[in-house]
Amino acid sequence: MRKFQVTVLGCGSAVPTSWHNPSSQMVQYDNRQFLVDCGEGTQMQMIKYKVKYAKLDHIFITHLHGDHFFGLIGLMNTLHLMRREKTLHLFAPLDLHEIIRTQLRLTNTRLYYPLDFHALEDYRNDELLYENKHLSVRSFPLKHSVPVWGFLFRENPLHPNIDKAFVKKYKPSIEQIKTIKEGADFVSPEGKILPNDQITIPSPQPRSFAYCSDTAYLESTAEYVKGVDLLYHESTFDNSREELAGITLHSTAAEAARVALKAGAKKLLLGHYSARFKKDAQILQKEAREIFPESYLSDEGETYDI
Amino acid sequence: MRKFQVTVLGCGSAVPTSWHNPSSQMVQYDNRQFLVDCGEGTQMQMIKYKVKYAKLDHIFITHLHGDHFFGLIGLMNTLHLMRREKTLHLFAPLDLHEIIRTQLRLTNTRLYYPLDFHALEDYRNDELLYENKHLSVRSFPLKHSVPVWGFLFRENPLHPNIDKAFVKKYKPSIEQIKTIKEGADFVSPEGKILPNDQITIPSPQPRSFAYCSDTAYLESTAEYVKGVDLLYHESTFDNSREELAGITLHSTAAEAARVALKAGAKKLLLGHYSARFKKDAQILQKEAREIFPESYLSDEGETYDI
Repeated sequence: MRKFQVTVLGCGSAVPTSWHNPSSQMVQYDNRQFLVDCGEGTQMQMIKYKVKYAKLDHIFITHLHGDHFFGLIGLMNTLHLMRREKTLHLFAPLDLHEIIRTQLRLTNTRLYYPLDFHALEDYRNDELLYENKHLSVRSFPLKHSVPVWGFLFRENPLHPNIDKAFVKKYKPSIEQIKTIKEGADFVSPEGKILPNDQITIPSPQPRSFAYCSDTAYLESTAEYVKGVDLLYHESTFDNSREELAGITLHSTAAEAARVALKAGAKKLLLGHYSARFKKDAQILQKEAREIFPESYLSDEGETYDI
Repeated sequence: MRKFQVTVLGCGSAVPTSWHNPSSQMVQYDNRQFLVDCGEGTQMQMIKYKVKYAKLDHIFITHLHGDHFFGLIGLMNTLHLMRREKTLHLFAPLDLHEIIRTQLRLTNTRLYYPLDFHALEDYRNDELLYENKHLSVRSFPLKHSVPVWGFLFRENPLHPNIDKAFVKKYKPSIEQIKTIKEGADFVSPEGKILPNDQITIPSPQPRSFAYCSDTAYLESTAEYVKGVDLLYHESTFDNSREELAGITLHSTAAEAARVALKAGAKKLLLGHYSARFKKDAQILQKEAREIFPESYLSDEGETYDI
């Protein structure tokens, strides 16, 4: 099975504290890396937690609040000083392009590498941002005081494996193996039909990871992330501050849990903790688990398998 | 004597490492704070080293290389979220104003506090940027690949103290005390003249601190910082990389020491270390001391009295 995991680089909210950095996560699938959000100090967090970024070609920024992107220009600058030559793909709200271009222009920086900026624009539906042979990344709308997008990383459906005893006995051609993997039955030289499900071993279910931050509780999120294996959903506040969550368009841990429950998620990761939760945000986990038992606090430097 | 000290928040160079953050120093004089440079992560460094910023009203940025200002927008944003109301004075190259305004505009941020931007412009002479009753801050030109300014913090000349035995015996009026402190002699009711130097105790010499980074070795620097108590001068490279220092318009530790020697500085602080020096930059101190014995490596979190 290909490596599919996420490392949390920052799980605090807008004001940095001694216990949390602002938002950032590094997703790794197979031999590719994808960075989601890039708060100030993200590159230092990568150094601290020994997260390399040699295979990072795609960065996704959810929205234009500073705690989600102030570290991007510094990371881009370091890649430049390191003489990176590969294209860097950046998926972000359109205005970030102007912010970056302004800084590059006024610091007389001509990047060593091409920057391919993809504006997140369709704010009514989900949208395919990236796909390779094994994985796709889609955006979907969330709800905050500025336009904000969630991101869904989903493995493509995997082909079934072919039963080894069948291969040994019937010696199918490469072309036949291909059609069997795509669902075809096998017809032997003698005209015997072997149904597909008798000669294949079902593949594991495709895995998926969704990142939802920042957002108020939103009905539609569960639809977009239906059946997700790992859901990261912001949980800025506990139940006692539900009203404040409503006003600031953030979520409580219980609301994050409701999304996970409704989506049929396998596991929920909480994060984007308000600065008022010091090292101990256990109350968030407790309140989330009352609704969705598989709720866990995320922490910086931790890697979660998907 | 009033408190006059500097705390180093970052003494690395352009590429952050696990051992150094990019440039920033907090100068404290009496009950005021002055931040010089603000590389990415400066606000986290302040948290880490318990450097409060309640008395910070003036920030000075030397030049527009990212490792000297990428942390500014994050710090400004935190001050905004903290509902700061006092004016923040920013002394920086003109283009930084556009960078800040662009980010504030595109993130829909209307700062809670007034930002008073002072462009560093005169690049041929030194210039008075700030003064209060006790302290002045001047800029002076350095030499790098982009316009860069050094900053000199200098205490105003202090009035002498008046000899206590004289006060007890002659009971001078408040007006007389004022004129004596300003240098006048005292004439007793009997017409006896007491020369100023016999009734006063000389005040300590005014103290000063200069910050020079980034810069190539420059003859004129010693003139601008003549007699400085504490000189912070970048020392990106050791002697073996003198040529590279020349090409990149940085200084070696020996060059920093030559400036200190020529200026008649009391003490030299080295910093802005190339990433190639890991935790041990002792060679820089060694090479500097061969020219100027009072040379010291600066380190993050350390506070130096001036």
